[in-house]
Amino acid sequence: MRAVDLIQKKKEGLKHTKEEIYFLVNGYTNGQIEDYQMSAWLMAVCFKGLDDEETAWLTQSFVESGDILDFSDISTNVADKHSTGGVGDKVTLVLIPILAQLGVYTAKLSGRGLGFTGGTIDKLESIPNFRCELSNEEFFKQIKDIKVAISSQSPNLTPADGKIYALRDVTATVDNKSLICASVVSKKIASGAKSIVLDVKYGSGAFLKTPEAAHELGDLMIKTGKLLNRNIDVVVSSMEQPLGLNIGNSLEVIESIEFLKGNYSEDLYEITLELATKTLLNCSAAQNEIQAKEMVDKVIQDGSALNKFREIIIAQGGNENVINNYSLFDIGKNSIEIKANQEGYISNLIALEVAHSAKLLGAGRDKKSDSINFGAGISLRKKVGDFVKENETVMELFYDEVSESKLNDAINIAKNSFEISSQKIEKPQLIFKN
Amino acid sequence: MRAVDLIQKKKEGLKHTKEEIYFLVNGYTNGQIEDYQMSAWLMAVCFKGLDDEETAWLTQSFVESGDILDFSDISTNVADKHSTGGVGDKVTLVLIPILAQLGVYTAKLSGRGLGFTGGTIDKLESIPNFRCELSNEEFFKQIKDIKVAISSQSPNLTPADGKIYALRDVTATVDNKSLICASVVSKKIASGAKSIVLDVKYGSGAFLKTPEAAHELGDLMIKTGKLLNRNIDVVVSSMEQPLGLNIGNSLEVIESIEFLKGNYSEDLYEITLELATKTLLNCSAAQNEIQAKEMVDKVIQDGSALNKFREIIIAQGGNENVINNYSLFDIGKNSIEIKANQEGYISNLIALEVAHSAKLLGAGRDKKSDSINFGAGISLRKKVGDFVKENETVMELFYDEVSESKLNDAINIAKNSFEISSQKIEKPQLIFKN
Repeated sequence: MRAVDLIQKKKEGLKHTKEEIYFLVNGYTNGQIEDYQMSAWLMAVCFKGLDDEETAWLTQSFVESGDILDFSDISTNVADKHSTGGVGDKVTLVLIPILAQLGVYTAKLSGRGLGFTGGTIDKLESIPNFRCELSNEEFFKQIKDIKVAISSQSPNLTPADGKIYALRDVTATVDNKSLICASVVSKKIASGAKSIVLDVKYGSGAFLKTPEAAHELGDLMIKTGKLLNRNIDVVVSSMEQPLGLNIGNSLEVIESIEFLKGNYSEDLYEITLELATKTLLNCSAAQNEIQAKEMVDKVIQDGSALNKFREIIIAQGGNENVINNYSLFDIGKNSIEIKANQEGYISNLIALEVAHSAKLLGAGRDKKSDSINFGAGISLRKKVGDFVKENETVMELFYDEVSESKLNDAINIAKNSFEISSQKIEKPQLIFKN
Repeated sequence: MRAVDLIQKKKEGLKHTKEEIYFLVNGYTNGQIEDYQMSAWLMAVCFKGLDDEETAWLTQSFVESGDILDFSDISTNVADKHSTGGVGDKVTLVLIPILAQLGVYTAKLSGRGLGFTGGTIDKLESIPNFRCELSNEEFFKQIKDIKVAISSQSPNLTPADGKIYALRDVTATVDNKSLICASVVSKKIASGAKSIVLDVKYGSGAFLKTPEAAHELGDLMIKTGKLLNRNIDVVVSSMEQPLGLNIGNSLEVIESIEFLKGNYSEDLYEITLELATKTLLNCSAAQNEIQAKEMVDKVIQDGSALNKFREIIIAQGGNENVINNYSLFDIGKNSIEIKANQEGYISNLIALEVAHSAKLLGAGRDKKSDSINFGAGISLRKKVGDFVKENETVMELFYDEVSESKLNDAINIAKNSFEISSQKIEKPQLIFKN
């Protein structure tokens, strides 16, 4: 078998065998196939696609390229959740304690964020002393003890995907549904989850621009799960405007704590409930949607989910007092309010622009080695469909040390991130059902 | 400018600017753009194409990446000919002495062959002591003295194309007409030709399979010439069956000498005349096709073209006695005749299969470092449309030391390379005119 012939085969739109997919992935991972051949193959895949079986083989080859975590000693009920990423998406922070409190185990391996805002690990590290670099032993012990742990990815999971992802990033071959599916699903399978719920986002703040594209990706992920004997379910949700009210690391943790105290914005509750319900049904922890909702509402109302969050903070060395004292967080020392220049309804609030502004304030990073400012971010006072009076605050920007030019850019972008209409605007649909 | 953005741009089918093409080519040549980015871009080009202007810019960027030969001190009438390659194609060997004898200068830079049979340099080196590695001074002096010289490519011509071609070869990105055009035309321009005639081949023995594809490539080459102020003309010709009668290095030189003595096969004469005519018209050395044919026929009939060939051999150190004594050539010590198993007309003679058989006998090489057996090859006694009696010889295989398994393969492939029909078969059309 020669790589060049397999590239040619895919270029002609022909279907690979399982052996061919493994030959490419293993050969690339162990250095026998060159970067330039893999990138040519990836580009051919972007044009000609992989079918369901090829996608499943690719996924499985990623899984088998590294370690596979095994929690069967602890529970058969290990779930995982993944979001394809969005602005203000702090769902993991509230979902995990809710699920753990309801008896579902979650072994959460997360990355630091690249791009506009931080990842789940960055957000949690805004809690003073919170430690995400758990050893394998610590990780397993904590899951056994309190049903949940969150670690930055230290085990050698899906190295093939790691190497291929880095290559896709610099060769304009990211946006193919099979490549995305294999990357996302392989990591979840390798990290030991039997039941996986995926939040596939679309809109200006997501890399998939339409609900149709998100649905197509979601369908492929479900099929891949079936072919690989994993329980995968998918929620397709909008990322036109940011999720919830806060964007930025400390600010998002505060919003999450408020959520667990019962003070939540509608959209964040809706998506969290949807993901929790699917997980509970998937794990047979609930019989139906109504029961799942009752279970979720109960652990929020009685404070037990918040308490689970406290347990996580304590277990991972963080300062639990943040729960009742937000001043322990690093929050930008300076703030600027962006006000409405006319009365009306917010008709548009572009997630990507809000994220861009937050990034300029210091909430994100470009390179892994860049530092992140936990206190930087944006707090929204209004969302699409809300009425706003002239001169009323639409959002507030928080920051510490920022150059004048970056600050001016951030302010201008924030000002242009929303539109106001004199017509009444309906609240947009968050979850897309086919 | 970032390479990844330009890859994305081409992936979306958008047109590059001249600056973008130069950025990619220069960046890749000087090592600032990585192999894996260039190969992804090349694959995107295979799917989305380059338009006429982009192709011309790519060609010009290749030209400017290295040295450009300048013969303006010697003549303004410097022509060049290139064939996209085929089986038994010894046209250069007969065309060049004819043109030189008719006053057209040719500075011929040729490569050694990779694949089934040798290149022009390999063929010439089958003449004992013939030297193709001319210094720059020798090359220019010989052109001044006898109007023609043939050298293996030592000057630093089109290094960008060299690097990109090597990459295309291992990433299944060879078969794009713009990439082929830029590669071929840039080399001809850089080697100083003002007037260029290209023989674009199609059929089983060529990499373009249909006359339409060859015509499309030819048209693009003509347009590229116009955009870059070079006189380019194109002949589209069939390579379904081998050209002429002999395949293999020594055998092809012998056939060329016979040609210049006036003993030629019809098809080799037809294509040589067509290419000579176009060159003579291009250089204003002839007024019309009738005059061009008269000129060509004259230098063959009076032996002056053969004498020019002798001058070339002498100038490049070869043994001129080969012209009258073919036993001075290395010809395979062993031979096997392949006979017809029925009476009828040759209905098919697959160039690729004949070439494959010749390669197994030792006539070609896989790697530059492989040695070539000048004496190995195949001599055809019959071509498509010829009548053959049962047990009459269709072709003869020549070889020296070959393993038994290779020899058996060569014989089997040769036996299967032709078909015999009881119906009368017309001689196929060689030159395709749109």
